[in-house]
Formats: sequence, C-alpha cells, structure tokens
Amino acid sequence: MMRLFKTLAASTALMLLPVAAAAQEAAAPGFDEIGPYIMTTFLFLICGFLVFWMAAGFAMLEAGLVRSKNVTMQLTKNMALFAIAALLYYAVGYNLMYPGDGWAMAGWLGTLFSPASLEPVGLAAADADLGYASVASDFFFQLMFCATTASIVSGTLAERIKLWPFLLFVVVLTGFIYPIEASWQWGGGWLSEKGFSDFAGSTLVHAAGGFAALAGAIVLGPRIGKYRGGRVNPIPGSNLALATLGTFVLWLGWFGFNGGSQLAAGTVGDITDVGRIFANTNTAAAGGAVAALILTQILYKKPDLTMILNGALAGLVSITAEPLMPSLGGATLIGAVGGVIVVFVVPMLDRMQIDDVVGAIPVHLVAGIWGTMVVPLSNPDASFVTQAIGVLAIGLFVFVVSFIVWTVIDKVFGIRVPEEDEINGLDVAELGMEAYPDFGKG
Amino acid sequence: MMRLFKTLAASTALMLLPVAAAAQEAAAPGFDEIGPYIMTTFLFLICGFLVFWMAAGFAMLEAGLVRSKNVTMQLTKNMALFAIAALLYYAVGYNLMYPGDGWAMAGWLGTLFSPASLEPVGLAAADADLGYASVASDFFFQLMFCATTASIVSGTLAERIKLWPFLLFVVVLTGFIYPIEASWQWGGGWLSEKGFSDFAGSTLVHAAGGFAALAGAIVLGPRIGKYRGGRVNPIPGSNLALATLGTFVLWLGWFGFNGGSQLAAGTVGDITDVGRIFANTNTAAAGGAVAALILTQILYKKPDLTMILNGALAGLVSITAEPLMPSLGGATLIGAVGGVIVVFVVPMLDRMQIDDVVGAIPVHLVAGIWGTMVVPLSNPDASFVTQAIGVLAIGLFVFVVSFIVWTVIDKVFGIRVPEEDEINGLDVAELGMEAYPDFGKG
Amino acid sequence: MMRLFKTLAASTALMLLPVAAAAQEAAAPGFDEIGPYIMTTFLFLICGFLVFWMAAGFAMLEAGLVRSKNVTMQLTKNMALFAIAALLYYAVGYNLMYPGDGWAMAGWLGTLFSPASLEPVGLAAADADLGYASVASDFFFQLMFCATTASIVSGTLAERIKLWPFLLFVVVLTGFIYPIEASWQWGGGWLSEKGFSDFAGSTLVHAAGGFAALAGAIVLGPRIGKYRGGRVNPIPGSNLALATLGTFVLWLGWFGFNGGSQLAAGTVGDITDVGRIFANTNTAAAGGAVAALILTQILYKKPDLTMILNGALAGLVSITAEPLMPSLGGATLIGAVGGVIVVFVVPMLDRMQIDDVVGAIPVHLVAGIWGTMVVPLSNPDASFVTQAIGVLAIGLFVFVVSFIVWTVIDKVFGIRVPEEDEINGLDVAELGMEAYPDFGKG
Repeated sequence: MMRLFKTLAASTALMLLPVAAAAQEAAAPGFDEIGPYIMTTFLFLICGFLVFWMAAGFAMLEAGLVRSKNVTMQLTKNMALFAIAALLYYAVGYNLMYPGDGWAMAGWLGTLFSPASLEPVGLAAADADLGYASVASDFFFQLMFCATTASIVSGTLAERIKLWPFLLFVVVLTGFIYPIEASWQWGGGWLSEKGFSDFAGSTLVHAAGGFAALAGAIVLGPRIGKYRGGRVNPIPGSNLALATLGTFVLWLGWFGFNGGSQLAAGTVGDITDVGRIFANTNTAAAGGAVAALILTQILYKKPDLTMILNGALAGLVSITAEPLMPSLGGATLIGAVGGVIVVFVVPMLDRMQIDDVVGAIPVHLVAGIWGTMVVPLSNPDASFVTQAIGVLAIGLFVFVVSFIVWTVIDKVFGIRVPEEDEINGLDVAELGMEAYPDFGKG
Repeated sequence: MMRLFKTLAASTALMLLPVAAAAQEAAAPGFDEIGPYIMTTFLFLICGFLVFWMAAGFAMLEAGLVRSKNVTMQLTKNMALFAIAALLYYAVGYNLMYPGDGWAMAGWLGTLFSPASLEPVGLAAADADLGYASVASDFFFQLMFCATTASIVSGTLAERIKLWPFLLFVVVLTGFIYPIEASWQWGGGWLSEKGFSDFAGSTLVHAAGGFAALAGAIVLGPRIGKYRGGRVNPIPGSNLALATLGTFVLWLGWFGFNGGSQLAAGTVGDITDVGRIFANTNTAAAGGAVAALILTQILYKKPDLTMILNGALAGLVSITAEPLMPSLGGATLIGAVGGVIVVFVVPMLDRMQIDDVVGAIPVHLVAGIWGTMVVPLSNPDASFVTQAIGVLAIGLFVFVVSFIVWTVIDKVFGIRVPEEDEINGLDVAELGMEAYPDFGKG
Repeated sequence: MMRLFKTLAASTALMLLPVAAAAQEAAAPGFDEIGPYIMTTFLFLICGFLVFWMAAGFAMLEAGLVRSKNVTMQLTKNMALFAIAALLYYAVGYNLMYPGDGWAMAGWLGTLFSPASLEPVGLAAADADLGYASVASDFFFQLMFCATTASIVSGTLAERIKLWPFLLFVVVLTGFIYPIEASWQWGGGWLSEKGFSDFAGSTLVHAAGGFAALAGAIVLGPRIGKYRGGRVNPIPGSNLALATLGTFVLWLGWFGFNGGSQLAAGTVGDITDVGRIFANTNTAAAGGAVAALILTQILYKKPDLTMILNGALAGLVSITAEPLMPSLGGATLIGAVGGVIVVFVVPMLDRMQIDDVVGAIPVHLVAGIWGTMVVPLSNPDASFVTQAIGVLAIGLFVFVVSFIVWTVIDKVFGIRVPEEDEINGLDVAELGMEAYPDFGKG
C-alpha cells in the first residue's frame, strides 16, 4: 500500500549527488549548467497555471453564451471535463503522446500506461538525470493542452447533449484521440519528421478540438427551434458579462499557451523569444477583436459583442501556430484575418444548419487552419505543402474517429436529451438544479 | 514623521556591498551564491499572488452559494476580512508566528509587535544579511495563508451573522488564533520539534479555519427554515456560475498555496519538487471532482454541481498536507477520498443541524484532517501518532478558543441579525444595498 | 510580402554568437552576465500579464456598476478599448514614449512610427546587443500601462456616451496623449530631468486617466435623472458580485503594475525591492478598504460596499507613486488616506454635478495626486515642489488636450446618445443585444 503512494520524488536528493559531489571538489555548478533547467521548469509551471486558467475561461464563456436554463449543465460539463482530462491524460494520454523509444507503431502510435508505479512511464523514470526541465512540470504543462481540446468541444454541443455521453467522449478524446495525433508532432512522430510546423497547436489543439466538435454537432443535430422554418433564429446568450470575462481569461491564459510552448527559458535567446511570443500573442488578439468590431459595424451597422469576443479568440488561435517569427505588424494582420473569419464563418455554418452554440468551430477549427497555413509566410523552415498535409492528416483522423465515436455512443446510449428536457432546460430536467434560482425569468 | 514613513529598504543597496565589493576584486557572485535567494523570492511573490487570488475565489464561491438577498453582505465580508487579515497579520500575527529567538513562551507563544519602526520585528531587521529569500516576500506569502483561514469561516456562517461581530472575530483569528497555532509548526514551535508533518497546511490552515467555523456555527445556530419540521430544507445558491468561477479561482490559487510551501526554488532539487507539487495538486483536485461526480450520480441519480465543486476543493485540501511525496496515482486517490468525504459529511452535518452554508466544514475541516492523517502513507518521516497529536492539539486549541470568543462576542454584542432582517435579507436590512437591484425576483 | 511578416527574431540566435563563441573558448557566461537579462525579462512578462488582467478587472468593475440595460455596451467598450490601445501603442505610442535619441522636440515630444518593418523603431532594432531585458517584453509590459489609462476613462463616462466617439478618443489618448506625457518621465524627458518621482504612475497613468475622464465628464454632462430637482439621485450598480470580482482582479493585477515597475529582478537588491513593493502594495489596498469600511459606518451608519471597493482601489493608486520606500505602516497609512479621499470626494463631485459612474475620478485622479504628493515623506530624493510641478504639468496637459479633443469630437460627431436611447438603455438601442436577456427586470 505504502509503495503505491510513495513516489520517486525523494530521489531528487540523489539526483543532485553527481553534480553536488563534484561541486564540493571543484566549483559549484554555474548558471549555464543548472540555470536553464530551473528557468524552464519555472516557465512550465507559470505557463501551465495560465493554461489551466483557460479551463475557467471556457467555462465562463460557455456559461455566458447558453440560455440561463442550461447554465448549471454547462458548468458541470466544464468542471467535469477538465477533471476527466486530467485523469485520462495521466493514466493513458501522456504515455501515448510521449512514447520516447517505446512507440507501439513507430511515429504513429505510442504506448500505454504501465500502472505498476501509479506513474506514467516518463514520470516514473523522471529526473534520473538532469533533463531540460522537471518531467512533472512538463507533464503539468502538457496536460493543460489536452484539457483545452476537450473544452473546445463542450461549447459547440451545449444545450442539447446529455452529460454522460459527452463525458464518455471526453474520455476517448483526452485519453486517446488527442494524445495520438499530438504524438505525431510533439511526441516526435511522423509529422515532425516531415517538417510540419505548429508551434503551440493551432491545428494540434484548436483545429483538432474543432473537428471533434464538428463531428459531434453533425451527429447531434441543431437545437430545437434554431433553424425552424428554414430561417436562422438567433438564440442569445444569457450572460454577456460572463462571456466577456471568459474571453479575458482565455486571452490571459494564452500567454501561457504560446509562451510556454517555447519550452525553454534559461538562455538569453529563449527568454527573448518568449518575450516576442507574448507581444505577438497579444497583438494578434487585438487585431482579431478590432477586425470583428469594424466588420460587424460595416455589415450589420452595429458592433456585435459576441463577434468581437470570438474575434479576439480567433486572433489568438490564428497566431498560435507561429507566434514567434512574425513581426508585430504581421501578427496583427494574422490575428485580424482570424477576426474576419469568425464574422463570415458563423453565418456560413448556420446556413449549413450546423448549430455551434458558442462559435467554437469558426474560432478554433477555421482560424486554426488559417493560422497553420500562414506559417510559411513568416517561417522559412515551413512549407505550404507540409502544412496542408498536417492539417489534412490531423483533420481527417480527428474528424473520422470522432464521428465514429459519437455515432457509436449515440447508438448505444443516445447522446441527445429528450425533446421535453431540452425545452424545459437541462438544468431542471437533467440535474434538478437551477443556476440562478432566485432570479425571475425575462 | 518622515521616519515613520521611511523604511530600511534603501539599505538594500548597502546589503549588496560585501558581496559586490568582493566581486570587484575577485569573481562576481555565482548562481549558487545569489541564485537561490532570487529564485525563492520570485517563488514567494508568484505563489503569493496566486494565494491572494484565492480570496477572490472564496468571495465568488460564497457569493454564488448564498441567496441573492445576502450577496452584498457576503461580498462585503470577504473584502473586509481580507483587508483586516492583512492589517492584523502585519500588526500582530507575523511576529507571533515567527518569533525567531523571541518566544514569550518557548514553542507555544511568540511575541508581540514593536511599533517603533511601523514594521514587524522580522521585517524591520530584514535583509541585513543574505537570507534564503527576501523577508518581505516571505511576509507577503505567509500573510495570504492567514487570510485564507478567515475566508473559510465566512462561508459557513453566511446569511445570518452580523457584519461587525464577524469582523471582530476575524481580528482575533488572524491576529492571534491562527498565528499562535501556526507558530507551533511553521514558527519552529513544539509541534515541529515533535515531527508533525503538514506541508502546506491541511490542518494548520484548513482544518483550523474549519474548526473556527464549526464553533461559530454552533454558537450562531442554523438559518431560519433550514431545519423546519425536523426536515432538512435545501436552500439553493443564487448563482452557480459565480460558485464555479470561485472554485476555478481556488484551484488556480492552490498551485501557489502548495507550490510556494516548498519555500525554495533555486536549486534543481527544489524546483523539481515544486513541479511535482503542482502536478499532484492538480490531480488531487481532479480526483476529488470525479469522485463527487460519480458518487452523486450513484447516490442521487443526478450529478450535483455544488458537490462536484466542493469535491474538487476537498481534493485540494486533502493533498495539502503532503503534496510532494505521493505518486500521481496516490495523489489522485487521496484527493478522491476528499471528494467522497464531502458527499457523505454534508448530509451528516445537516442531520446534526449544523448549518454550514457553503460546505466549508466538510471541505476544509474533515478533508483537512484526512489529508493530515494520510501523510505517513507516503512520507516515512511522519508517524500516525504525531499526526494525530497535531490534529488534536490544533483542533482543540482553535475550537475551544474560537468557541469562547464567539460566545463572548455574542453575549456582549449579539452575533445574529434580527429575525426580520434575516428573512428580508441582510443586503437591504443591514447594508441598504442590493447586489442585483435591476433583476426581478424568481 | 514575406518580408512584411518576417521579423528579426531569428537573429536572436546571432545575438548569442559573441557571448557564446567566447564561451566556448573561456568560461560560460556567469549569472552576473546573463542572469539579470533573463530574470528581468521574466519579471516583465509575469507583471505584464498581471497588468493585462487589470483590463478584465476594469471591465467587470464597470459592468457591475452600470445598470443592466447598459452592460453589453460597457463590456464592448472595455474589450474594444484594450484592443485599440494595443494597436495604437504599437503603431504610434511606443515610439513617442521611448524616442531614445530620436526626440522630435527634446524632452517634450518623441518621434513617430516608421512602418517600413511593421515594427516600432525600438523593437525593430531590438536585441542587437544584450540590453537589460528583452525589448519585446518591455514593450509588452509598457503597453499594459497605456491600456490602463484608457480603462479609467470608460467607467466615468458610462451609460450615456456613444461607442465610436468614445473609441475615437481612446485612439488619441493611447496613441498620443498618454505616450507624450509619459515620455516626459519614463522616456527620459524633461520631468525626469527635473527629478520628478512617480514610481509606477500614480500621476502618469492614474491621474492622467482621471483627468481625461474629468474632461470627458464635463463635456458629456451627467446622466438623465442623476441630478433631477437639485438632488443627487443614486443610481445603483446592477451586479455587485461582478464589481467585487473586478476589484479583486485589479488588486491582483496591481502587484504586476507596481512590482514590474522596479524594471529589474536579476540582482539581490532588485528582487528584494520587488518583494517589498508587493507587500506595500497589498497593505495600502487593505488600508484603503478598512478606512472606507470604518468611515462609511461612521458617516452613514452602514458600511457601503462600493465605497469599500473604491477605497481599496484608491489605496492602490495612492501607493503607486512610491511603493518601495515606505514602511509597511507608512504604506498602510498612505493607502488609508486614499480610502478616506474616496469617501469624501465622491459626494463632492456629485455636488458639482460631475457624474462619474464608477468613481474613477476620486480613485484615480484625486488619490493619484495624493500618492504623488506624499512621495517626499518617504523618499528623500523627491521634493514637494517638483512633485507639484509634475502633477500640474501632466494634469494641465492631459486635461486641456482631452477637453479640446472631446469638444471637437462632440462638435463633429456628437458624443452623447439620443435621450430616448439613454432611457431605454444603450444595449438595446445602440447594440441590439441585451447582456442578460433571460432575466426578468427588477
């Protein structure tokens, strides 16, 4: 029993022995020897908590954009999906994504978790020597990316999907689908061999989440009344203050998302790059917001706050594939195109009667592809062909597998709530708990 | 007058003299000489602002779990209690908690503040030599723990306690009760001598806050209508979006709470430990949330969002006594038990007619004890007997002193609002200010 | 095209050459050589994201203090103003504020942006040698201060100003007015030559924002019904939970605001100073909150939550001019006076029929002046005369230019919404989108 609980952490003392012993005899280890390890670990922890914070951002954004009768359900999904992602990524995903030398199918499929030590293989073997950073800090950081992928899905499918089938999909997505496709690039798999370039995951995280959401939206169908009589009936969100808060939270978290993806902070060059990434990330979001602000004024004669929020987010998604190389001006333009995408793709999806409650598909899928495809403009090491191959491969894989998983779950359990529950709201019907019980209905 | 305002900060220049002067002659100070000081100070500041953020988390959690007619009061209490804790910990608590060589009663009672310099003794003497970190950064970090103890109390006693008597208790708790019991362990007092092990305060902070809350709840009695006719009448919170936001905020802040408690970040071993602490803290929260999710589904046939939120928090409290040594799997299990505790203890308290509005007693007191008692399973330096002694000593001290203080305040001023005010809501009756005046009542 | 998007970032590799090449031959660069650059860049990034977070704080504070019918508009303004500030500061402001040797009018007026590289001059030339920190991280940090100035204005003018004229003013404020006056001190201009002392911007940011808001409030006039019949009719905010959240967010962000203004973190002395700044910033806020709590209890027999929130903020503004030198006790008193100022100046402005919806003028302008004028009490290098000159010069410049700009915008476009729109609420009338459509009206 005790062995189950104990970890190798105590061996960090041992780990120091070779260096420290030598240090006693000669000089203490210099900054060039241990500084990068310490600083990069710090980077992972700080950027990791920022990306964690994005889970709260998605929760608030989505709670604000659904109707008040579905808010408790949306909050429950967001809290539960993060917790499930954390456990699945620990139990399965991390090993699948970073197989090291232990690929089950070289470059395509990693290995599963060995539960002997209650630790993923990478973590159990951690810290035996002085890597580039603490393995646990890397795990912590990477876990947040996995959870983000799931957060993207929950928004699109809100207001009509059952809780448990959704969470079952989250299990598959965070334990298997995401780690496998991400291993192709970040685990050193075939896409990274090919030279695919996706710095912090415009495609690997955001478009992937968007493809999983799209598959779900197709299987699930639109909300009752959304496309009644061949017309698009807008269903306004219940709390735009929450939605705006969520957007600010996501914007803040994105500094960690992109900045931490430098994966190093202990040299002058690395920290300088992190600084540039922060500045570019911010300006891309600003570009996306301003583009949506101006464009909705022109098209609709009135600025549209939800479009502005999604414009900022699309700007962030767009710059995620390459936040380092563009100039500030270039980053602003890349982000602005993201904002334009949102304004045009949202009604396009509605014409296709794909009901995406929060606009996650335009923001994460379409702007994610845009961000990935524009990388070669600023990064000479990237090519359009390889970028297209990466987007197609990941898109196909995630979409097809997700579609199959959604269909199977639907056939076996049913993914859609009964019509009456949808009309009455999921909070009362499915959870028996209103989000705002003291407030009168408008 | 000027002396009152001026500090010794300017002397930080002086402080550098010995090192810097030597540096001119020989080599500049290496990373091993000044790096740990700089990195640990950074850790205190970053983790300190994260724990500060927990004050906002408690405010949102509690504002979301009370009825809308008591929200302004709950917000006022949370803002005021943090400010009061900051001042009392500065004026009295910090000295009591870290007496150094100046114990009034060795190992049991520190010394009081000497106001000559408008600084606590430790801070006035600060930075005379190169300690392990800046004293002010340590003060900043520790202050946040003191404030957390008070935040725990405010939730339990919501919706029926008067503002000023509550704040008077906060004065005693943050200026005296918390610093004294915390000095027993973290100030180098008798419990630390005994080998008690409570890494970041499952007992010292969370159970202590819970015991103070329990004493208050007993003296104060339950809300009107909560236990009418021998039945438990659930009183739903008014804004679950806020409550969920608060939980995410607390989860985020907890990385600082536990991570900063490593109290060092400038060596490979220390920063590696901080990384492991972050990962364990996260997985314990996930374990608690998932346990509560599954258990409420099984018991009530419907997942209960407030239980899930409290499950995550109980997971966090449970891992706080030992976030370093467990494996990820062990940490997940420890947190999951915390989630189970919440689901069973909440109705148990109701059967005892102890009205704990937000569930702070299960989350902080009971899970805090669980977390403390489970330490020996992963940490061989801890023993069950010593852990039990620590829990008992702190529990008894905090509960008895709190009970006496609550009783005295009640006899002298009365702690409970008039019945009519409670029914009409504290916001209008006591403060003349509604939290949501534009919204219709449900 | 490609050149437009590409930046010099790739040359960071080159930048390392001289040091790294030398390193191969002799010793690796020591912590004293590259540590300060790395740590200070880290400080800018961490403190920069904290100050970014203040934009969310202002948004929540203001959304909570306006009536529910104007919330969407207030959120739109806050999101848009931050994005616009980011673009204008990039395109114009940064160059104007930090002209280096390129003053158009020495010490008074910097230079404009050269768009050739899509980078500000400072950034295009960045990182050619090892400065004190990454230029992009400095840009990122300073940008947030510029945006803060604009955030201050939006609160005062809420509930009656048109969106686009407001945003036009934001363009002028963030592109020109703020960068010019800030260049006088932080760009090495005439005020810094004179010995003016404003550590993190009590006057340069907060009073400046307050003066721009005051000019706008005078040109715009009060809200309909606010001063009907010679009486002051209080117009309560619609969501005090949001307002409290916003205050906590601002308090948190302020650690970055003041701490980052140390502009260095890589020596023992610097990080020690940052630690002291964090502690003083926190205690000043606490002092302001407690002062407002006690004073409103005494004056009105009931504590006033919005006064307590603004008291905390005024405490933060007050300590911003000199967060390093005061003792904790001195900082508490300085902040407490800020809280007192709020309680007295809010009704004073109302008597002058200056309608400041959120209290930004007392908090930022008046407490900003107080904080600036009290600097000489703790900092012997500052003089009352020079402080007064700085406050007067900046106040006059910002107020007069703002007044002219507001007046011109008003004459050309009109800045005030039609009376009917103001009564119906800006959300429906101007944006066609309610913030809380599902909720009944109170």
